[in-house]
Amino acid sequence: MAAPARPSAPTGTTTTSAPPGAATLSADDVAAALAAVRTGAPLVQCLTNVVAANLTANVLLAVGAAPAMVDNPVEAAGFATVAGGVLVNLGTPTQESMAAAEPAVVAATRAGRPWVLDPVAVGALAWRTDVALRLLDTAPPSIVRGNASEVLALAGGRGGRGVDATDTPEAALDAARHLARTHGTVVAVSGPVDHVTDGERVVRVANGHLWLTRVTGAGCALGALMAAFAATTADRLTAAVGATATLTVAADAAAATTRGPGSFAVALLDELALLTPEALAGAVRLP
Amino acid sequence: MAAPARPSAPTGTTTTSAPPGAATLSADDVAAALAAVRTGAPLVQCLTNVVAANLTANVLLAVGAAPAMVDNPVEAAGFATVAGGVLVNLGTPTQESMAAAEPAVVAATRAGRPWVLDPVAVGALAWRTDVALRLLDTAPPSIVRGNASEVLALAGGRGGRGVDATDTPEAALDAARHLARTHGTVVAVSGPVDHVTDGERVVRVANGHLWLTRVTGAGCALGALMAAFAATTADRLTAAVGATATLTVAADAAAATTRGPGSFAVALLDELALLTPEALAGAVRLP
Amino acid sequence: MAAPARPSAPTGTTTTSAPPGAATLSADDVAAALAAVRTGAPLVQCLTNVVAANLTANVLLAVGAAPAMVDNPVEAAGFATVAGGVLVNLGTPTQESMAAAEPAVVAATRAGRPWVLDPVAVGALAWRTDVALRLLDTAPPSIVRGNASEVLALAGGRGGRGVDATDTPEAALDAARHLARTHGTVVAVSGPVDHVTDGERVVRVANGHLWLTRVTGAGCALGALMAAFAATTADRLTAAVGATATLTVAADAAAATTRGPGSFAVALLDELALLTPEALAGAVRLP
Repeated sequence: MAAPARPSAPTGTTTTSAPPGAATLSADDVAAALAAVRTGAPLVQCLTNVVAANLTANVLLAVGAAPAMVDNPVEAAGFATVAGGVLVNLGTPTQESMAAAEPAVVAATRAGRPWVLDPVAVGALAWRTDVALRLLDTAPPSIVRGNASEVLALAGGRGGRGVDATDTPEAALDAARHLARTHGTVVAVSGPVDHVTDGERVVRVANGHLWLTRVTGAGCALGALMAAFAATTADRLTAAVGATATLTVAADAAAATTRGPGSFAVALLDELALLTPEALAGAVRLP
Repeated sequence: MAAPARPSAPTGTTTTSAPPGAATLSADDVAAALAAVRTGAPLVQCLTNVVAANLTANVLLAVGAAPAMVDNPVEAAGFATVAGGVLVNLGTPTQESMAAAEPAVVAATRAGRPWVLDPVAVGALAWRTDVALRLLDTAPPSIVRGNASEVLALAGGRGGRGVDATDTPEAALDAARHLARTHGTVVAVSGPVDHVTDGERVVRVANGHLWLTRVTGAGCALGALMAAFAATTADRLTAAVGATATLTVAADAAAATTRGPGSFAVALLDELALLTPEALAGAVRLP
Repeated sequence: MAAPARPSAPTGTTTTSAPPGAATLSADDVAAALAAVRTGAPLVQCLTNVVAANLTANVLLAVGAAPAMVDNPVEAAGFATVAGGVLVNLGTPTQESMAAAEPAVVAATRAGRPWVLDPVAVGALAWRTDVALRLLDTAPPSIVRGNASEVLALAGGRGGRGVDATDTPEAALDAARHLARTHGTVVAVSGPVDHVTDGERVVRVANGHLWLTRVTGAGCALGALMAAFAATTADRLTAAVGATATLTVAADAAAATTRGPGSFAVALLDELALLTPEALAGAVRLP
């Protein structure tokens, strides 16, 4: 489950050989990452918020992963050692779920399992900001996924007004690079064009649709998808980009046949389930 | 965000100049309230139940508002001062969410933000009845939204068997008027015909479909919608009626093209996103 | 609400008069159980997980039952005495919800109300395994619903890797029979062919679709459906089989018109609402 699907560069390697303007990752890399998830069917432990929990689980099921919402302090650490990957999303923290987060990510890290931090509304709200910063220091995540405001806040800047990004991914790129280098992680900044960086390499994914911002929990589900991809693809940058490409290409297809955010969310799950690695390779845009 | 979209009568004003039988509010008033939400994009803090949280957030997103489910006692009060409006729904109380409710509504009230109380199953269950009555006394809500049984119970009568209304809105109207006058609030009683009153004025909204009662959390989402409307329309009666009209007119349109409660719920979100103030004015029935 | 819809054999009776190979229950028995739910509109108290809560409530509403998610220790026991049936699902336990479970099932049992245990991930996780075993001993449930791994674990064997069954229902049948006899309960093992037993009789339901395993919470919703059926049909085996047949026959119809798990989940609710007892009798397969 945690075996890499293909040889890949270790996180942090600079792809100095890429010609200027060339994509750091190819469409084939992205397709291979999706194929690895379908084959590996990773078990993904989610400590996530109550709003996004249902969509998150359904998104994981749609790509062939197995969700397990084990977020209590009694069971979380033990389960993290058998899960393929762990997601910690700070959307609706409770004393219990927050007490579970640190043991879970420490256990995952010791067991060599990837974990993803989704710092929802960090910067805007103090408690979760403290938790996020402590988790970053204690057991650096494999991937951090957030919007521009959240990434700026984590990197030491100011925050947004909650779950909304009040900054653009481009404006957050330097902060994302800094955060990635400082903590040895990959940072994915969601937005009209998603930016993913390991501190050296930067990959942009230009798929996706405005309606993704009108479906609650779509971004949170992307964090879980990254944990699934990181469970089956060793290179964290490729995992984060693969998950982003999978969700946003499916969103493009879903938006093409629907008339509003309700039918779009339904079609998104269908498209995720139907998406083949070949179709993904043909549709992903990596400018 | 909290600025009124148009001049409006202060809550409690009796519209003595209206001819007998005329609607207290016009279709244009309702349309203006929807337009104000679309323009204002208010941030709505929801302390709500786990069953309705997802639909509630999606309904808010569909009308252009921004949901934020900040319901823990560490962050709730601080966030209430920056939110455009606050919803407290008592559907699935926990010690933590209940400990967050009072500080949140006190902070909202001090900051001049509207808040909406949805007293789910009050009257049938003792703990939440106590909480609701205490909140009513501590920081009277801008709007109370419930079914007939819940409103009767809040006004001092008996309760229903839980989330189901065992009384009609018509039977609860006197109790609603009394509750509104006593606490200086607006009371909206959901039912086949919705009744909304500020203690003097009474507005009936005759749109809606039976399937709204077959989609869990539709009533709860209406409470959140009222908080969004109250954030952008100063007159609380207009806000409550505007939210009710928006949801029920969208429901009429959704029911016309679907075959059961599953597809209805999906179409409801589409119709909410597509609904224009003009279409709303043309379809709302205010007998 | 708790009155049986028709005379039925007490749980545990061996149907020795049935000819070899004949189904223990007939399609008409199943149809009568659905008719009883539609007529009785039972109130079903759900102590369930946050992921499945929304789908569970919508499934109950679709068949005409009334969901009430009363899962806090202050209110749960009192409510259990007025509910038609109670579900305890261990999917996302918290200290509060677990503190509510035992008083709720003890109160339900004293009041003569059926209750259903869904031991999610029991065997794989220690806390919930302890809780499940204690509940089994304290107030034996009317029905236990789980996958093969969970039933094997409850009966004293090993567990799976979480919510996934790593064993087949056939392999778990002896364990299910043993569990049913030891605790005087009915055990339903979900799988490609569902197996339901009261320790003597065994009924197989061969409807259903793979996509049910790709919709999060579908199995959990089935547990709630069993509580609804047990509230209106005295014979627990018939109730468990009736609920299973209703969900899986609706799933067959939903799968026939949809293209992926998203649209399937939506159509499932529509089909549940549209399903008549006659159509159920015509479509159910009881090999």
